[in-house]
Amino acid sequence: MASEKPLVAVTCTAPVNIAVIKYWGKRDEELILPINSSLSVTLHQDQLKTTTTAVISKDFTEDQIWINGRKEDIGQPRIQACLRQIRHLARKQRGGEEEEDPLPVSLSYKVHIASVNDFPTAAGLASSAAGYACLAYTLARVYGVESDLSEVARRGSGSACRSLYGGFVEWQMGERADGKDSVARQVAPESHWPELRVLILVVSAEKKLTGSTVGMQTSVETSPLLRFRAEAVVPARMAEMIHYVKERNFEGFGQLTMKDSNQFHATCLDTFPPISYLNDTSRHIIHLVHRFNAHHGQTKVAYTFDAGPNAVIFTLDDTVAEFVAAVKHCFPPESNGDRFLKGLPVGPAPLSDELKAALGMDPTPGGIKYIIATQVGPGPQMLDQPHAHLLGPDGLPKPVA
Amino acid sequence: MASEKPLVAVTCTAPVNIAVIKYWGKRDEELILPINSSLSVTLHQDQLKTTTTAVISKDFTEDQIWINGRKEDIGQPRIQACLRQIRHLARKQRGGEEEEDPLPVSLSYKVHIASVNDFPTAAGLASSAAGYACLAYTLARVYGVESDLSEVARRGSGSACRSLYGGFVEWQMGERADGKDSVARQVAPESHWPELRVLILVVSAEKKLTGSTVGMQTSVETSPLLRFRAEAVVPARMAEMIHYVKERNFEGFGQLTMKDSNQFHATCLDTFPPISYLNDTSRHIIHLVHRFNAHHGQTKVAYTFDAGPNAVIFTLDDTVAEFVAAVKHCFPPESNGDRFLKGLPVGPAPLSDELKAALGMDPTPGGIKYIIATQVGPGPQMLDQPHAHLLGPDGLPKPVA
Repeated sequence: MASEKPLVAVTCTAPVNIAVIKYWGKRDEELILPINSSLSVTLHQDQLKTTTTAVISKDFTEDQIWINGRKEDIGQPRIQACLRQIRHLARKQRGGEEEEDPLPVSLSYKVHIASVNDFPTAAGLASSAAGYACLAYTLARVYGVESDLSEVARRGSGSACRSLYGGFVEWQMGERADGKDSVARQVAPESHWPELRVLILVVSAEKKLTGSTVGMQTSVETSPLLRFRAEAVVPARMAEMIHYVKERNFEGFGQLTMKDSNQFHATCLDTFPPISYLNDTSRHIIHLVHRFNAHHGQTKVAYTFDAGPNAVIFTLDDTVAEFVAAVKHCFPPESNGDRFLKGLPVGPAPLSDELKAALGMDPTPGGIKYIIATQVGPGPQMLDQPHAHLLGPDGLPKPVA
Repeated sequence: MASEKPLVAVTCTAPVNIAVIKYWGKRDEELILPINSSLSVTLHQDQLKTTTTAVISKDFTEDQIWINGRKEDIGQPRIQACLRQIRHLARKQRGGEEEEDPLPVSLSYKVHIASVNDFPTAAGLASSAAGYACLAYTLARVYGVESDLSEVARRGSGSACRSLYGGFVEWQMGERADGKDSVARQVAPESHWPELRVLILVVSAEKKLTGSTVGMQTSVETSPLLRFRAEAVVPARMAEMIHYVKERNFEGFGQLTMKDSNQFHATCLDTFPPISYLNDTSRHIIHLVHRFNAHHGQTKVAYTFDAGPNAVIFTLDDTVAEFVAAVKHCFPPESNGDRFLKGLPVGPAPLSDELKAALGMDPTPGGIKYIIATQVGPGPQMLDQPHAHLLGPDGLPKPVA
């Protein structure tokens, strides 16, 4: 006991991921086990990330958590499930080790956690995936857990397990009732397809009416098409998508990404009462993408939509500038334009009259608020600099500079 | 030959029908055979109808057709298919009759046809169903054909065969390759459910991007969900819907009508490239209906959407006034309101504060252009008054008064 440190602080970051084969529906609500496998692309943390600090100390009298600077209830079932699971893994791991192995901290120490997202809520990106991946990864570092973290992250938010890896990540649905084989694994690293780019088109929208947890539950209960999709369509699509990723086949990757997004939204519409995440601007973006591709005679851009109206666009580096110009043509920015583009720099590009004519759309000013340009990125990272900690030595949030 | 009349003129009217179990997709493009059975409600011709006059004369030198006062190409394949089929039936019928039976007209006489729809194009109602049903029915009267006209109408437009009957009509998909068993039949007459009312909510919209003929063909080719729907979902729904109609069970009828509309639009979204007939106003109407029903704790209104953004609402007579008031509350009419309501009279109704709060929607002024109130109606009718003819004795369109 003498070798235990009085306080350990760890800060990590974790990425957002975008599913190209969608996860929608659980077969087990408690363990968060999906009705089908899914596949995602991890986005670069230079543009979008969650940062989490966990501090463990013998002086803390209770577990506490702050999210985006606000004290939250640590008793939330999903946070509790993550904490229980990581402590369980830590205990298991130590039980199997030599007695003389120094224990860095006691498992009985209370933990203080602080987490911030650096991406706007309006971006409609599921902050829970990056958030729970970051929580799982940070807690693992604090407790010295080295085993697979899929279950820890998954118990927080299903898709969070895919944010544990960089590049292209598969979440295998698994078959076991206890979920031990429902794990994430990397299909290809972030360096695999360097030309791939990602554009997040943030759509002006009313607030979301149906949360995804409740939404997918209602879909499982009421949509005959969802069950068929999970059982009869997704398995072949998973194999196909992994193949396209490995081959860096954008035509195949893009087409299947669009088809799977559409099918996910189809099952939402088949839910009763129906769920509609796409709005008229989303539909115009879909139309724009198909016209753009038709003009070029190949799939140069592909859209995917999650549980909201914002589009995530995949394309290759040589197409980014022209597509952004097409977006600006169809959705003229309402501000003076300097903050319309965030993230990776995008150069100007001329738009041919032929392409303008091919798009054939009446401009919708202000339909898209802004674009975040990013790319494929790595998995969670531990930050070494002590100044990165979100919590001070007293275990309380540092004052914001 | 001496008993042949030199000229025969017949004028008939035919109704619009609204499918509550949707038809989408053909298994035979030429014969227009569907991939699933469907069921519809025939609307009353006091509000919406097609009127068609057919004149046959030994003096005519060629077949001719006028639609809505404009000369159209009689060579259109679907019109030709109807003409061929009716002449085939006429020939077959005469062949089986006694030699002494007087022949009213020669089958070799050319025909002049004029057809007008009295409903606005903006209503987005499939004019082809009423149009081809009226063509089939009118030609049958002219040629004295007494057999089932399903095939004649169907060859013009699949859903037209359902407009051959009043009340509640089933189009049995049939199994035969030649389509002889793909026929419409009445499930219940128009007098069966006198309380049932129909409201057509005409939505302000951009023009339709995908016609239904091309749309359903693309769906059959690309949507995995459509095939599953046709094979595994619709058969049970047909039986269920017929049961609800026979029992006059509005709860069951309304719920299934909404579910089937949603599933049809889901398969459109699963088509590649995706088809979206619903727009934001349609989605708001869907939301309004579910909120209205939730407030009342039962299914008091039900929506269905065809290949366009306009909603068709089913409800019972005691609910019409309150629901129309709710629609006006959520979609305040942009004109001064006197022409907002067409068709059957709808009285004013107070809207309780509780219901207003339950609807919880920001008003969308002008989202709905107008409402046509109607009810279930009879099948095609022959008009006896000579002044009803759209063509004069010379076989040319009468000047519009």
